[in-house]
Amino acid sequence: MKTEIKTILEDIRDGKLSVDDALFMLKTDPFEDIGYAKVDLHRKIRQGFPEVIYGAGKTAEQIAGILGTMKANGQERVLITRLGEESAETLSQTFPIVYDKISKAAYTGELPSPDGIGKIVVATGGTSDVPVAEEAAVTARFFGNEVTRLYDVGVSGLHRLLSHKEEIMKASVVIAIAGMEGALASVIGGLADCPVIAVPTSVGYGASYHGIAALLSMLNSCASGVSVVNIDNGFGAGYLAGMINHMEAKK
Amino acid sequence: MKTEIKTILEDIRDGKLSVDDALFMLKTDPFEDIGYAKVDLHRKIRQGFPEVIYGAGKTAEQIAGILGTMKANGQERVLITRLGEESAETLSQTFPIVYDKISKAAYTGELPSPDGIGKIVVATGGTSDVPVAEEAAVTARFFGNEVTRLYDVGVSGLHRLLSHKEEIMKASVVIAIAGMEGALASVIGGLADCPVIAVPTSVGYGASYHGIAALLSMLNSCASGVSVVNIDNGFGAGYLAGMINHMEAKK
Amino acid sequence: MKTEIKTILEDIRDGKLSVDDALFMLKTDPFEDIGYAKVDLHRKIRQGFPEVIYGAGKTAEQIAGILGTMKANGQERVLITRLGEESAETLSQTFPIVYDKISKAAYTGELPSPDGIGKIVVATGGTSDVPVAEEAAVTARFFGNEVTRLYDVGVSGLHRLLSHKEEIMKASVVIAIAGMEGALASVIGGLADCPVIAVPTSVGYGASYHGIAALLSMLNSCASGVSVVNIDNGFGAGYLAGMINHMEAKK
Amino acid sequence: MKTEIKTILEDIRDGKLSVDDALFMLKTDPFEDIGYAKVDLHRKIRQGFPEVIYGAGKTAEQIAGILGTMKANGQERVLITRLGEESAETLSQTFPIVYDKISKAAYTGELPSPDGIGKIVVATGGTSDVPVAEEAAVTARFFGNEVTRLYDVGVSGLHRLLSHKEEIMKASVVIAIAGMEGALASVIGGLADCPVIAVPTSVGYGASYHGIAALLSMLNSCASGVSVVNIDNGFGAGYLAGMINHMEAKK
Amino acid sequence: MKTEIKTILEDIRDGKLSVDDALFMLKTDPFEDIGYAKVDLHRKIRQGFPEVIYGAGKTAEQIAGILGTMKANGQERVLITRLGEESAETLSQTFPIVYDKISKAAYTGELPSPDGIGKIVVATGGTSDVPVAEEAAVTARFFGNEVTRLYDVGVSGLHRLLSHKEEIMKASVVIAIAGMEGALASVIGGLADCPVIAVPTSVGYGASYHGIAALLSMLNSCASGVSVVNIDNGFGAGYLAGMINHMEAKK
Amino acid sequence: MKTEIKTILEDIRDGKLSVDDALFMLKTDPFEDIGYAKVDLHRKIRQGFPEVIYGAGKTAEQIAGILGTMKANGQERVLITRLGEESAETLSQTFPIVYDKISKAAYTGELPSPDGIGKIVVATGGTSDVPVAEEAAVTARFFGNEVTRLYDVGVSGLHRLLSHKEEIMKASVVIAIAGMEGALASVIGGLADCPVIAVPTSVGYGASYHGIAALLSMLNSCASGVSVVNIDNGFGAGYLAGMINHMEAKK
Amino acid sequence: MKTEIKTILEDIRDGKLSVDDALFMLKTDPFEDIGYAKVDLHRKIRQGFPEVIYGAGKTAEQIAGILGTMKANGQERVLITRLGEESAETLSQTFPIVYDKISKAAYTGELPSPDGIGKIVVATGGTSDVPVAEEAAVTARFFGNEVTRLYDVGVSGLHRLLSHKEEIMKASVVIAIAGMEGALASVIGGLADCPVIAVPTSVGYGASYHGIAALLSMLNSCASGVSVVNIDNGFGAGYLAGMINHMEAKK
Amino acid sequence: MKTEIKTILEDIRDGKLSVDDALFMLKTDPFEDIGYAKVDLHRKIRQGFPEVIYGAGKTAEQIAGILGTMKANGQERVLITRLGEESAETLSQTFPIVYDKISKAAYTGELPSPDGIGKIVVATGGTSDVPVAEEAAVTARFFGNEVTRLYDVGVSGLHRLLSHKEEIMKASVVIAIAGMEGALASVIGGLADCPVIAVPTSVGYGASYHGIAALLSMLNSCASGVSVVNIDNGFGAGYLAGMINHMEAKK
Repeated sequence: MKTEIKTILEDIRDGKLSVDDALFMLKTDPFEDIGYAKVDLHRKIRQGFPEVIYGAGKTAEQIAGILGTMKANGQERVLITRLGEESAETLSQTFPIVYDKISKAAYTGELPSPDGIGKIVVATGGTSDVPVAEEAAVTARFFGNEVTRLYDVGVSGLHRLLSHKEEIMKASVVIAIAGMEGALASVIGGLADCPVIAVPTSVGYGASYHGIAALLSMLNSCASGVSVVNIDNGFGAGYLAGMINHMEAKK
Repeated sequence: MKTEIKTILEDIRDGKLSVDDALFMLKTDPFEDIGYAKVDLHRKIRQGFPEVIYGAGKTAEQIAGILGTMKANGQERVLITRLGEESAETLSQTFPIVYDKISKAAYTGELPSPDGIGKIVVATGGTSDVPVAEEAAVTARFFGNEVTRLYDVGVSGLHRLLSHKEEIMKASVVIAIAGMEGALASVIGGLADCPVIAVPTSVGYGASYHGIAALLSMLNSCASGVSVVNIDNGFGAGYLAGMINHMEAKK
Repeated sequence: MKTEIKTILEDIRDGKLSVDDALFMLKTDPFEDIGYAKVDLHRKIRQGFPEVIYGAGKTAEQIAGILGTMKANGQERVLITRLGEESAETLSQTFPIVYDKISKAAYTGELPSPDGIGKIVVATGGTSDVPVAEEAAVTARFFGNEVTRLYDVGVSGLHRLLSHKEEIMKASVVIAIAGMEGALASVIGGLADCPVIAVPTSVGYGASYHGIAALLSMLNSCASGVSVVNIDNGFGAGYLAGMINHMEAKK
Repeated sequence: MKTEIKTILEDIRDGKLSVDDALFMLKTDPFEDIGYAKVDLHRKIRQGFPEVIYGAGKTAEQIAGILGTMKANGQERVLITRLGEESAETLSQTFPIVYDKISKAAYTGELPSPDGIGKIVVATGGTSDVPVAEEAAVTARFFGNEVTRLYDVGVSGLHRLLSHKEEIMKASVVIAIAGMEGALASVIGGLADCPVIAVPTSVGYGASYHGIAALLSMLNSCASGVSVVNIDNGFGAGYLAGMINHMEAKK
Repeated sequence: MKTEIKTILEDIRDGKLSVDDALFMLKTDPFEDIGYAKVDLHRKIRQGFPEVIYGAGKTAEQIAGILGTMKANGQERVLITRLGEESAETLSQTFPIVYDKISKAAYTGELPSPDGIGKIVVATGGTSDVPVAEEAAVTARFFGNEVTRLYDVGVSGLHRLLSHKEEIMKASVVIAIAGMEGALASVIGGLADCPVIAVPTSVGYGASYHGIAALLSMLNSCASGVSVVNIDNGFGAGYLAGMINHMEAKK
Repeated sequence: MKTEIKTILEDIRDGKLSVDDALFMLKTDPFEDIGYAKVDLHRKIRQGFPEVIYGAGKTAEQIAGILGTMKANGQERVLITRLGEESAETLSQTFPIVYDKISKAAYTGELPSPDGIGKIVVATGGTSDVPVAEEAAVTARFFGNEVTRLYDVGVSGLHRLLSHKEEIMKASVVIAIAGMEGALASVIGGLADCPVIAVPTSVGYGASYHGIAALLSMLNSCASGVSVVNIDNGFGAGYLAGMINHMEAKK
Repeated sequence: MKTEIKTILEDIRDGKLSVDDALFMLKTDPFEDIGYAKVDLHRKIRQGFPEVIYGAGKTAEQIAGILGTMKANGQERVLITRLGEESAETLSQTFPIVYDKISKAAYTGELPSPDGIGKIVVATGGTSDVPVAEEAAVTARFFGNEVTRLYDVGVSGLHRLLSHKEEIMKASVVIAIAGMEGALASVIGGLADCPVIAVPTSVGYGASYHGIAALLSMLNSCASGVSVVNIDNGFGAGYLAGMINHMEAKK
Repeated sequence: MKTEIKTILEDIRDGKLSVDDALFMLKTDPFEDIGYAKVDLHRKIRQGFPEVIYGAGKTAEQIAGILGTMKANGQERVLITRLGEESAETLSQTFPIVYDKISKAAYTGELPSPDGIGKIVVATGGTSDVPVAEEAAVTARFFGNEVTRLYDVGVSGLHRLLSHKEEIMKASVVIAIAGMEGALASVIGGLADCPVIAVPTSVGYGASYHGIAALLSMLNSCASGVSVVNIDNGFGAGYLAGMINHMEAKK
């Protein structure tokens, strides 16, 4: 963005731009205000990835409005997370979205060919963690990553995990998703030699406290290379994993 | 104890005992009141194990008083836990105690020959958990159990634990002791086919919250056969493990 | 399991098995992957007990799939916990399950003759704790234990509990189940001379915080021989009690 | 106090008092401002009991200042709680205080003859709860109550408590003091037919969380007639017990 | 109860009773076991008040069963709390209950003439606290107390409370009921010269955390003579207030 | 109010008022008791603002009753917050209310011309915070303030906020409303040179714990001039902002 | 600051400033980097108040370095909060600071004449809250406000507070400081017709949890016009009160 | 590691290795047991990085023992974190360690030339966060990364951060370290287009609860690409950042 500012300043110097116009540009350009939301149109330039719409707590109409604004500004590839089935139905009447019921994620546009450094492994402790895992997997795929799924490999039956040691050892990034006691992240963290993103889930009952047990467990992991995102935040893990899987030297 | 009550009742019926005396016996017999404590003298009869003195928060004088009362009533084998070094010093001038600095446990009398069903394995996640582990081990040994120590086998280096899989598989009871994320209990719970007693420790920092992370993790263990005692409660684990290791049919 | 590994290694040495096949066996054999779950088929060998399906958060179809895989692999006796009434209805059309509405547990196969060391007593503080108690009782019975039920013996009317002192004194293991202040575990812990497994329940209101009060109370029990499982975890308590009630020397 | 206000108003009507003077009286009379504290001189009239100085967080000089102001206003009988030994030493050079090291309470003036309805029983779960119990006992005695002490009668050895059932049944009020799991309050609540004031103490370790476990346990007591004061608040319990033990019809 | 035990013992001595029969009486008499509950029939003798049925979590059938057992044993006056409207409807077809929709309490039998020492004041901070207040008021009335209601006198409009200072000053016991910040208990505690029972309610939102804010506030009250019961526990407060309002010397 | 009291006292002195009548006025005048509520009629005099009805937990009938009492006493301008749509419907049949569905606020009477010192800026982190923001905005407008809305200016896209730096710099008071991590308050606090009222919202999931994360974040703001109100308390923020925006020297 | 940016832009346009120099100015000017801190030199311009040094966690040397940088840039009037006595001693050897031991605050330069709208009242519940109160008072005075202190006016002796009703009614802003149950803020909030800034303190014990009880209580205040700052944050309250007491229309 | 296992298996097949020897190798080789610790000697092979000794809770003697074992096995480059000054002193008498007092980290061996993808930026909110930041910076440097430090750039003075926007935009990984409200992570997360590792610190007071406020804030960050490690865990952040900064395709 610095370059962009510099260009504006140079345009002022060169008389191509008035001071007031420059001021206006600096302030109003990067997003469009559609009342209930300020749609960010420069994020791709600024951060290298397309915009994502967080669907929770937005009506189908609001989502359609934001999506329309994006399309009108040339953004074809858009991911929508936490989109209810009904909203997806409504939305699909206007936009050609691809919707996945398990992850509750949808997208428009073409999926890019995977071009990351390696593969992202998405592992879960149990079957109930799968919706969160799918949110992570769909997100990672959307941002151009190849994804390997290892579901139901919780530590209470260690052989299930150990039989997949090879996939874990070869992974570029591992996303370890678990509720209850969340031990999966530590065990994978001890096996893998790549960054591990731990996602606590709200799966469990009693003293799991909707994910607190897993969250605290993961934050205290004795394994190195493990970091944590919010409870049930599959999107955040998938996004970050994709970012890491696309690391390269900046010019 | 029922038998005892019945004897008293029969003695009343048979005129061997007056009603008031019986009432007195029922109420005052099983312990001796030495002011600051009511020393329980019937627990051995009632529960099969000798009395233990919990040393924390008691002065050396108070402990000596309780110990003296026990001895005077014929109880030779007494365990004292959480005994500070200074108190141990003081106590050792009057009583022939054996004191262990790491576990802060002491005992009087002869250690019994181990006569349990099998061996009790005491495992820890790290080096800092050892004091709690020693409290458990000394307690278990005091109550007649053979103990195998597996220290520093935390899950972040899984091979350290897996190389001891045999001891774990052969154990009669396993005591799994860990701070931080407490994942050790779940992993051992998945490997072992015997009762696992999990002891969270206050080892850790930040979001370990003095053992809460490990406690919640252990309570939510996805492995079956795991139960939990209080944070840092090595004694409780050792005592219970000994009880389980001496299971036999009651007459 | 060690023996099994050794057999495989010996087969390699003897040329009966290729290295790659051995590697495959070591990794893939003990469970079957049916997509949404990895069905554990060796647990019985590894841990001495048949597999249990935790029904919460699984659809009737998923449960049927897992059950079918087990049956196909010769596992006749299967316990299903936390099974909703509707799912039970669906399931019963394909499998000959026995379903209990109060505990929400079901099983297939014949119940084994009780062959434990003694009896397991399941005690509750109040009437509302009964569903958790029944989950414990059904589980214990399923794993071959004789069960005695003592319901509504909470400490606020101590005589109700004391009138059953004999059952408690004669028990092999006691499962003490209570919500609210959870004092039952401590009082029973003081009476019994066997392992006591405390189960806090979410019964109560206000400052009971869905079981936290009982959980903390039980973890801090001043009685020895008491350990704790997760809130409402009747299954865990029943399973562990059964394990303890079948203690015997390993060869 | 209403009568007092009415008198002032009548004095205005009768011309005995100017409006401004009345306003002043209404506002400034009931306490004396000595800078760091507003010493309440009317509380005895207003509430039937003499003033108490809460010593914690006050210097010996501040306490002496408050005490002096009280004496100068004719208040001979004053209780000082949470008074450190050093402050007590300093204070005793100026005032004839009676100081008790265990409860850390002191008082000036004569103790009144006990004139309550009955006896107040102060019971503790263990030896470590005694300082809190003594604060309660000294306070109750200071306010004219006869006190019976039952220390170390925790529920893990129920017979110790049951052997004192008679004192409990005959009590006017029972103060039940316990740390750890705090079950004492519920058990006494079930035995007694008088008000039970529960005092959680910070005695314990690990998941006792400095009294939270006992506090929650006591708040959730399934026994009727039990209410709770703050953790370690022996004074509050002794004061309230004394109030209840002096109940009588108001004119 | 001691007398009762003594009688039994004397009967044994006098040959009127066999030992086994005595044992049976001691154990089985005071309650009747109807399967899902152990109905306490001696509580009135033991504690001076009739039995109360806590209706929450019990079916109309279970409540009817308990009620029937009581009636069959001669207990005419029974209070039922937390009784849903539908259950009340069902119950009223068999028993002549008086039901109050606001407090959700019902009773059978005649209300006794108030015979306490004085009046019990039930005060609330706001309108939303009224259901809890009515549970307290109905309970107190049921146990023979005269009740004065002061509703919506929260501290944010202090004059509303101060205009009722006289009722508060004359009360025998005050029940102070408030949600949100719970300051009412402290302010009343400072005004009243009688025991104040504080009841936090779950009224509020955000950081009130369903009554925690009020609960903590009340436990920390800087006024003396204040004790606290569980959140929303109107019954407990009414029962205890009635107990205090009937204080008299025991023989 | 002091003047008012003084007038009453002077009237007594001058014989215009009897003592009893004065007593009555002092106690009963400032509110009207309509059974379920004590309607405060002097608050306007006492605090400079008209009464507000907090609609949550009140029936349409109760609100109508309070509103009617106010109107009967001459209070035309009344704000009702947290009013459900159905209740609004019912109410509108009797009273000419203006109702806003988003903020769930209604009012009767004419809105006053804005006469504050400057403008109040209401800023939100996201779209989901808008209902809370509208409650704040409507409240502020109701009390005579001009309001500028800046919605969806959360810190993850800092340019959206910075492009509105001018409005923030010129504001008289800023209300910063955000859920999730609540960073908005700190960032605005660092930019603005006026009081900032932070409102945490319950927007978010997982470790946001219904607003705790935002609440703690805002309380710990490293920016000066920031204070905090309860979670989702738009009304409180709007009311306080209006108060500050009308600051003037008192005579 | 906008004007400042505009000036820079105009200077570019007019050829008075090169683009790179402008870029440099925009980025580096407003603070000076002295290694361990970035000293903010434009805050006065940007926010209307001089810089304050938060002394906690900084060495005397670091504070001296920051102070020296400020002085070197012409900032004479500097406030230092949370300054330990030893650091103050050290600092006073180089700088002419005025230090107050109770509040632990120091300042350099001349105190300005009070020129606010009215008076700021600083009220505390007890004597132990005074250090926090003095931090607030010294801060308010430093920023040009007249301060009235009302200490030890807690709600348990309501008359102490009510006798100062006039000061409260006449205040421009009230800072209500209390630990324990924090009810002072609500009561003052109900009396005052000006903004009330509530400061919870860590004064108390047991269930006060170092200020949580007071904090929650204050956040849930049922009085309008009350906002809250962090526990023990006297500075924040004094600063904000001063800001409100200097409200005036912006040009 | 798979390769290693395969080699062993092939050696068995080829008769180079007996079954028992293979079994021994598989189990005992990768670490050396020195009693109080199991020193991991294969981690470098397994995970690509040398071993790190976590110094907290270990005596100088224990650390020396572990270090010696490593050296004896050829590991020259070792990092020791959380090493007290005294232990460092002791250790330096035997080993040529380089010790840094601020970060409390030490290392032996040569620092490698930085060979990562880009630069790692370590940013802190304030001066008090510097020790944690230095632990991160020293760790990252130890593992071959170039580090840029941006200290004291907290969001309350946003221009301090914005003036370093270029370093942030160019970073390969940013470590955002902050206590109090922890908003720094979100703001940097919104600016940067690389992975951001957030480290909450225990810096703060009152409602910061030793880092909980910052931790929750960071977990709820509305910016994408942000993950979190434990409170004060500078090492974990530095290690993970280094791992990400060395991402490359696996063969």
